Amino acid sequence: MYDQQLAQKASENLKTLRVKKPLIHNITNYVVMNYTANALLACGASPVMAHASEEVEEMVSFAGALVLNIGTLTNAWIDSMLIAGKKANELSIPIVLDPVGSGATKFRTESAKRLINELSIGVIRGNASEVLSLAQEGSRTKGVDSIHSVEDAADAALMLAEELNTTLAITGPTDLITDGEHIYKVLNGHELMGFVTGTGCTATALIGAFLSVDNDPVSASATSLAYFGLAGEKGAVHSKGPGTFQIALIDALFTINEEQVRKGVRIEKRPR
Amino acid sequence: MYDQQLAQKASENLKTLRVKKPLIHNITNYVVMNYTANALLACGASPVMAHASEEVEEMVSFAGALVLNIGTLTNAWIDSMLIAGKKANELSIPIVLDPVGSGATKFRTESAKRLINELSIGVIRGNASEVLSLAQEGSRTKGVDSIHSVEDAADAALMLAEELNTTLAITGPTDLITDGEHIYKVLNGHELMGFVTGTGCTATALIGAFLSVDNDPVSASATSLAYFGLAGEKGAVHSKGPGTFQIALIDALFTINEEQVRKGVRIEKRPR
Amino acid sequence: MYDQQLAQKASENLKTLRVKKPLIHNITNYVVMNYTANALLACGASPVMAHASEEVEEMVSFAGALVLNIGTLTNAWIDSMLIAGKKANELSIPIVLDPVGSGATKFRTESAKRLINELSIGVIRGNASEVLSLAQEGSRTKGVDSIHSVEDAADAALMLAEELNTTLAITGPTDLITDGEHIYKVLNGHELMGFVTGTGCTATALIGAFLSVDNDPVSASATSLAYFGLAGEKGAVHSKGPGTFQIALIDALFTINEEQVRKGVRIEKRPR
Repeated sequence: MYDQQLAQKASENLKTLRVKKPLIHNITNYVVMNYTANALLACGASPVMAHASEEVEEMVSFAGALVLNIGTLTNAWIDSMLIAGKKANELSIPIVLDPVGSGATKFRTESAKRLINELSIGVIRGNASEVLSLAQEGSRTKGVDSIHSVEDAADAALMLAEELNTTLAITGPTDLITDGEHIYKVLNGHELMGFVTGTGCTATALIGAFLSVDNDPVSASATSLAYFGLAGEKGAVHSKGPGTFQIALIDALFTINEEQVRKGVRIEKRPR
Repeated sequence: MYDQQLAQKASENLKTLRVKKPLIHNITNYVVMNYTANALLACGASPVMAHASEEVEEMVSFAGALVLNIGTLTNAWIDSMLIAGKKANELSIPIVLDPVGSGATKFRTESAKRLINELSIGVIRGNASEVLSLAQEGSRTKGVDSIHSVEDAADAALMLAEELNTTLAITGPTDLITDGEHIYKVLNGHELMGFVTGTGCTATALIGAFLSVDNDPVSASATSLAYFGLAGEKGAVHSKGPGTFQIALIDALFTINEEQVRKGVRIEKRPR
Repeated sequence: MYDQQLAQKASENLKTLRVKKPLIHNITNYVVMNYTANALLACGASPVMAHASEEVEEMVSFAGALVLNIGTLTNAWIDSMLIAGKKANELSIPIVLDPVGSGATKFRTESAKRLINELSIGVIRGNASEVLSLAQEGSRTKGVDSIHSVEDAADAALMLAEELNTTLAITGPTDLITDGEHIYKVLNGHELMGFVTGTGCTATALIGAFLSVDNDPVSASATSLAYFGLAGEKGAVHSKGPGTFQIALIDALFTINEEQVRKGVRIEKRPR
């Protein structure tokens, strides 16, 4: 029932990450910087946060992946993201984008689209409304208001991934990953994840970490999200609320072993 | 002895908040962004942090309340607070202000006064020295140096609330809330709250959340502070220090039920 | 075997800190602001974060120490560090510098050197590669690549401290502190500290706190790092991973008593 090849791959990706400890360069929002840095450390990566236009080109050149997140954007930060992103593209370093709040304000939607238009992005991760807001004017992609089920979202995501020529990872109770051709669903996760700020942003950062060791964006996204969701399930067991849960989630990212990942991830391939 | 009407109101406000999940727009300081976002999520609200001048008008228009906090202020951030605040006033969206460090530096005192002069603020929350520093030159309000008791602070706050035509929430071992006419005291709380950074800022954010469902600033302030203090009491029970306490406090905000709030809050009305 | 005088001093410094509760002014990076503020509160100090050029001179004038950290630097922040630092020097308020990432990008190395050249810095704390990157061109100090042991690092640090005329605190599995004349080693600590973001920055902030009550930079550095390492050992006992550990570390900083510090710190004097 669950994809065994991707379960194996999840386990291998985590193992490689823990051995290689790649530098992950984040230009992200103020709210989640601390939490995502701790999550990246817990999974085995080496996080760095650097946003000054004077240094982002140099910093990204040492990185295994670049994570861009517009959660507390300003134009100066978007400019730095573009500088870092162009250098990353030049060096074939994968980029993951989190279009936080795209669709909520014009400034966010336009900034996200600017990043997508000017950079080659490996994976875009967001919730359904954020991701689907990225469709160009006149696109065939259905708007968020017409999405009534995971299947509707999957169909819309498929078209949009093709249109944007990238991989989309839409997270929610069920995560959807598509490159416009294949669709995978990740069934791992826990509802408490919705009560901790920055779990979405952390999912994005973990996709970045997995992209640094797995050059297939679909596989990197599905395996990292499944690992993260599994850590959420494990962390929730002894939690008394979202406070203890956010801490237990970091512990779980760290303590979960590769065998537990192989057996515990629940990734399905949806026939197109 | 304790005000039963406000105890009932505290319970109802929390219930409404958890059902409506209002968006609370925060322009706040870097230190507390993560913690206050988690506290807002735990109480039932939906936090968003956005400070770019390009988007704050649009963002605040979706919000149930606007929280302004000058903890790590610069002029650019104050400008965005003014833009967001004017829009909020235009749309009758309530504003709560946290004048962090007002009285400590001229820049903070003057920035806080500028916000108060140019905006209509629903509630100002701070400690006694921050709040009383907001008195205009030549005001009758006694300075902080002359405050030797909760009663002194109450008298000074009463005059200042009248002068500024707003509601003041002065937090400390006992919290005082006054609109210049009535004075309420909140007796809930725990001394460990003073050893966690951002508990004051979190109190302010929670006042914002309660203001979004209760349009009486005195009632919204007293009930939110009592709920927060009660969560502090509950969180402290199993804490081993300020680390476990900060986490237990988030759990308590989330797990405390409306009946516990109705029975546990300790709000007194002081005769004028 | 361990230096008894410094063990006694560690205990006394902590006691004084808890009584005096000095204000520690931090101009630091976004990632660690919350954690270092909580660590400073837990040890007994009063943290403030303020970076606006308009207020840093006034703010630092109330402080027992100034902590400068370039972890998420921009030129505007470096300018504020220089303004605050010059005022601190004028008022003989000690400065501690954390050159985060110096050596990784030119921007960081040059910014760190600019701060060192224009200010009189009491203590510089970093890992071996950060600290040794601060050597001037053509200096006798060996580069990081030639460091193969703690002894190599100690020899390099000794020369560099003399060259820069300051005290260096190089943290790692064993911490080294030298003013160019004496060398102390701190043996306290726990490997989980490397899996929590900002423990290095927190070590720097704690050095700042101890400098505010102990005007000998070598003693303030050695005693604060030993206390911090001891708290790490204590916090690790009941931790299930880096999440619970980061919280237990704050608890330990708060609950550890002066007698436990006197008995538990392990500081050695290395003969030159």
